[in-house]
Amino acid sequence: MITANSDTIIALATPTGSGAIAVIRLSGPEAISITNRVFKGKDLSKQATHTIHFGTIRDGETILDEVLVSLFVAPQSYTKENVVEISTHGSMYIIESIIKLMVRNGARAAKPGEFTLRAFLNGGLDLSQAEAVADLIASNSAASHQVALQQMRGGFSNELKQLREQLINFASLIELELDFSEEDVEFANRDQLKQLILTITNVIHKLIRSFEQGNVMKNGVPAVIAGKPNVGKSTLLNALLNEERAIVSDIAGTTRDTIEDELTIGGVLFRFIDTAGIRQTEDLIEAKGVERTLEKMKQAKLIIYLVDPLQNLQDINKQVEELSELQIPTVIVVNKSDLLSPQQQIELAMLDPLYISAKNNLGIEELKGEILRKVNLHSINTDDVLVTNVRHLEALQRTQDSLEKVLYGIDNPVTSDFLAMDIKQALYYLGEITGTVTTDDLLDNIFSKFCIGK
Amino acid sequence: MITANSDTIIALATPTGSGAIAVIRLSGPEAISITNRVFKGKDLSKQATHTIHFGTIRDGETILDEVLVSLFVAPQSYTKENVVEISTHGSMYIIESIIKLMVRNGARAAKPGEFTLRAFLNGGLDLSQAEAVADLIASNSAASHQVALQQMRGGFSNELKQLREQLINFASLIELELDFSEEDVEFANRDQLKQLILTITNVIHKLIRSFEQGNVMKNGVPAVIAGKPNVGKSTLLNALLNEERAIVSDIAGTTRDTIEDELTIGGVLFRFIDTAGIRQTEDLIEAKGVERTLEKMKQAKLIIYLVDPLQNLQDINKQVEELSELQIPTVIVVNKSDLLSPQQQIELAMLDPLYISAKNNLGIEELKGEILRKVNLHSINTDDVLVTNVRHLEALQRTQDSLEKVLYGIDNPVTSDFLAMDIKQALYYLGEITGTVTTDDLLDNIFSKFCIGK
Repeated sequence: MITANSDTIIALATPTGSGAIAVIRLSGPEAISITNRVFKGKDLSKQATHTIHFGTIRDGETILDEVLVSLFVAPQSYTKENVVEISTHGSMYIIESIIKLMVRNGARAAKPGEFTLRAFLNGGLDLSQAEAVADLIASNSAASHQVALQQMRGGFSNELKQLREQLINFASLIELELDFSEEDVEFANRDQLKQLILTITNVIHKLIRSFEQGNVMKNGVPAVIAGKPNVGKSTLLNALLNEERAIVSDIAGTTRDTIEDELTIGGVLFRFIDTAGIRQTEDLIEAKGVERTLEKMKQAKLIIYLVDPLQNLQDINKQVEELSELQIPTVIVVNKSDLLSPQQQIELAMLDPLYISAKNNLGIEELKGEILRKVNLHSINTDDVLVTNVRHLEALQRTQDSLEKVLYGIDNPVTSDFLAMDIKQALYYLGEITGTVTTDDLLDNIFSKFCIGK
Repeated sequence: MITANSDTIIALATPTGSGAIAVIRLSGPEAISITNRVFKGKDLSKQATHTIHFGTIRDGETILDEVLVSLFVAPQSYTKENVVEISTHGSMYIIESIIKLMVRNGARAAKPGEFTLRAFLNGGLDLSQAEAVADLIASNSAASHQVALQQMRGGFSNELKQLREQLINFASLIELELDFSEEDVEFANRDQLKQLILTITNVIHKLIRSFEQGNVMKNGVPAVIAGKPNVGKSTLLNALLNEERAIVSDIAGTTRDTIEDELTIGGVLFRFIDTAGIRQTEDLIEAKGVERTLEKMKQAKLIIYLVDPLQNLQDINKQVEELSELQIPTVIVVNKSDLLSPQQQIELAMLDPLYISAKNNLGIEELKGEILRKVNLHSINTDDVLVTNVRHLEALQRTQDSLEKVLYGIDNPVTSDFLAMDIKQALYYLGEITGTVTTDDLLDNIFSKFCIGK
């Protein structure tokens, strides 16, 4: 079993690279005393928690940097241990020198996620909250951000914890029945138990159902821009992307590498599936091309079907029909709409398409609105509790299976010991979500995916 | 003239990218009040300087993040203004959202170096100290780091400031003489003035001389590994580099991209000049090859001449002779020394070479010692004041020119008004170094090279 360690860990907490400042973090019983040994300034051991102190870090007589030291005295810190944050000038040379110095003075280089692991082991966060910290850092859209933040701030785990405690009460009453099994007593009221199981089942069922939406909000909506070659698919993607980029680069210094085929609309991330196959297939009707393309398209939750006014109407109708067989929300978009003849407009009207000109940036806003409407995410209330983690989903499903056995046991002549076993199983799976029940493998698996310094 | 602004600036102070935490910095009169408006937690306007507060940043009802807010109340901050540092989870989405929110609430995105510019304008740093901040962040070896840190902590500017003030006294006395010019009085004692000028000239001369060494410590020692093809030049470079890399990667999470041809030995950076030309020239004696190679080599401050035991002695002697004409410190190194016959050892002994085996990592430490000895940097006392900045060098040289005119004026029948003019010129150039005298162009030029957030 992984338990809280008595050693003091250190890591760079800010990204590597050149910046104005960097923050090195220490956590552990010796965090303050190790820092104090190499810090010239006030005596850190005598300072209050949540205070900041200017001074120098010295390796013998050599000054490594002028720094600001922030003190967090246990248990008033992220990890619930003594924590020191050293704000240095953002040079990798300085960062390395200071970390090396601290290691020589008794600190140990932290493993990935070890600060958050300690926060969990010391009761600062439950497991689902700890997992949400990593999700929060990785979040790149308003939707994924809100889902992660909500989970980090408690999310469904409080509700699950309460229900689990009630279930534990029943479990102990039933255990008691086992002790008196020869007397055939019933300490646990079966009706009340059934009521509780139904309540829990309801909550869990709702959470399981939320996964699909939660997953989409976390990982993005898989989408496809389809259409014949040269209808302007890349131009459209760029038109959609450019505005986003402009917003981002508005804030000097915070530009990020936009992944070419990811795009945030109204706070929701869309991942455009590579349909290079479609582009190479001149004719959608051509058997092999269709097959490969459709296979790709089936992964999508949204299809933007782009039409060129120069295409013949029969072709368009055929393709729209084919797409409709996929039963995926589809937006039909007529590009180069400035080239439309009145006759074409009349012919296309029956498809009720959106008219845009990707090149001239016309109709793009309307298209965005329509995209959001089609995926039905514009109305998401981010206060809804959503499950986004596959591990949680699996534990919830297993809990549900166990609870169904308990229900069967209540309604049928099943002995208390079997009932107790099924309840225990449900408690185990419920506990896995919040980390009341953990194994070393599980913790390793979760925290090894964290970055170092978190 | 650039003056301290009354607005409040904001920028990300840590590197962009994913990390455990990020720090957003605000500076200006409204830094605390703007933050207070979007912060839910304690009332920040009522908290003491150098304290840290946990809470949430909210955009209306939407929580953007759980943060730690560090307060620095003017003038107890880097910029001498109110400063707030917001420590957020390290997601670019969160960083952008918070910066946008702050901008909507009255902050302005900071320009490159604007925090340090404010520190300078508000008297927290003089100009040469401000420039050293950028050098410190860019420093990538113990030597460049010490030079930058020393300059940031005052370096030569205190001494220059004192000398300048004394010179100002004389200047005003001489100005006074001008007012009484018809009376032919002499308020400024010419002997004392001469003594002061000589003292200043001495200091400046020493600083000018320190530039070559300072520059090498800041930018690295240009070096060449020369030798015939296949003598093991790359293997040697790798042997020298690998150890350094191993040290760096010891500290998990702080690995940096090592530039292939940069190498730190004993804290001194060596930049290996690309001598691809040498490799392609089978015979150093071949006219054109020699010419191009020598041209490259002339930039070097160190040549490592690598010899293969299989080469014939006559060739080696010829090449050593050619290299000696360059008058650059040269280390002659025999690689693959495990293959040496006793006869070869005797023959090579007259060159007094170092014997190594790059492949087997033998003799590498000895070579490093020899390299440091040859460039004569092992004995550098990093407490010595070194000039590393070309701008400072130029200002020092101009100061010296003006001071020489003053000296000439004292020793010759020059009228007080000319003397006053020359002293003023010297004062101007001296003032340029520490920023007592600045122009907008100068400041723009210096601070535009900073990163945003510094």
